[in-house]
Amino acid sequence: MKQEFYNLQIHTNGQKLYEFTNQTMKWIKENKFENGIINLSIQHTSASLIVQENADPDVQTDLKNFFDKLVPMDSRLYVHTTEGKDDMPAHIKSALTNNQISISIKDGNLLLGTWQGLYLFEHRLEKQIRKIVHHFIGE
Amino acid sequence: MKQEFYNLQIHTNGQKLYEFTNQTMKWIKENKFENGIINLSIQHTSASLIVQENADPDVQTDLKNFFDKLVPMDSRLYVHTTEGKDDMPAHIKSALTNNQISISIKDGNLLLGTWQGLYLFEHRLEKQIRKIVHHFIGE
Amino acid sequence: MKQEFYNLQIHTNGQKLYEFTNQTMKWIKENKFENGIINLSIQHTSASLIVQENADPDVQTDLKNFFDKLVPMDSRLYVHTTEGKDDMPAHIKSALTNNQISISIKDGNLLLGTWQGLYLFEHRLEKQIRKIVHHFIGE
Repeated sequence: MKQEFYNLQIHTNGQKLYEFTNQTMKWIKENKFENGIINLSIQHTSASLIVQENADPDVQTDLKNFFDKLVPMDSRLYVHTTEGKDDMPAHIKSALTNNQISISIKDGNLLLGTWQGLYLFEHRLEKQIRKIVHHFIGE
Repeated sequence: MKQEFYNLQIHTNGQKLYEFTNQTMKWIKENKFENGIINLSIQHTSASLIVQENADPDVQTDLKNFFDKLVPMDSRLYVHTTEGKDDMPAHIKSALTNNQISISIKDGNLLLGTWQGLYLFEHRLEKQIRKIVHHFIGE
Repeated sequence: MKQEFYNLQIHTNGQKLYEFTNQTMKWIKENKFENGIINLSIQHTSASLIVQENADPDVQTDLKNFFDKLVPMDSRLYVHTTEGKDDMPAHIKSALTNNQISISIKDGNLLLGTWQGLYLFEHRLEKQIRKIVHHFIGE
């Protein structure tokens, strides 16, 4: 059994989806992983991880808009407001999506569907540096 | 360490929950898996995976109705509308639930609670063929 | 490869978040786990697991309030009502969050961010005893 760790850093600049499928794939190729699981975990509670369609960018716009409407940036709605109007909504959006995803690898490839990509979903307005831990376990 | 893969295909016919606990259990028994993790990942972004109560079917009706109301099939709300009024809501419902679940196996059994079952949650209106990758890692 | 299982029981008393990071950490130390994955799965569909901020308790209050408003305890909205006004909303809140989370362990530590903690999110009103299966796979 082999285990490897890798911290992927992503610089974000506002609320949207940032695809990182290629960076994950590059790490798999460099390490010649064949079969196993990559456990992805984002080390923050105001951004999240999702697997989404990577064909039409409009899907990402609609996703962002839906979550914005569902969880309004209106400080009157929350007790925790000291870190900015976008902070508490960011924690809620994070709870509604995922902090962690496990992806299967077979014969050196990510087992994702034809139109699936790996995305960081940034929920804060200002620039951030986000850390996504990659942990491979397998052969 | 042992690893095995299996593609479960499920034919769906409209928006509802489809239980597949028995198919997963059958695969475990056939392969005599004892202890390990089964990583389940659905290869689509318009259907999802959830663990839910399998005692009262009304729970599934209420779940479907809640998500329909939360994410209306109203094309005026979305930019991405070319694939049908149910397509963008399907992507959003998928983001609100899960594409991937890891289930633990102990002594040949799925570690699920008494009332828990594994479900595919179909979010499209038309017939679909859905692929759920099963990946066992363990002994 | 090593595998270990542990059932953590948590006594809950109403709708809120219960942190269990320390109990999980204690189990890791006692077993001297070095590198691997802990797969956490809650054996219920009316309580869930989330990774959230453990700095300001107001975050937890706002989370609970948001989910209460999004999924009202109003029996007129649901078919499944026999188990109490909080039961069907609990199943829905569970579907919107997570039944299962995989956490990576490196050099004997949980790979969580600085402000991240592991929480049980209780969605029922009455006292409950909840079981969270811990399953370690690694070395």
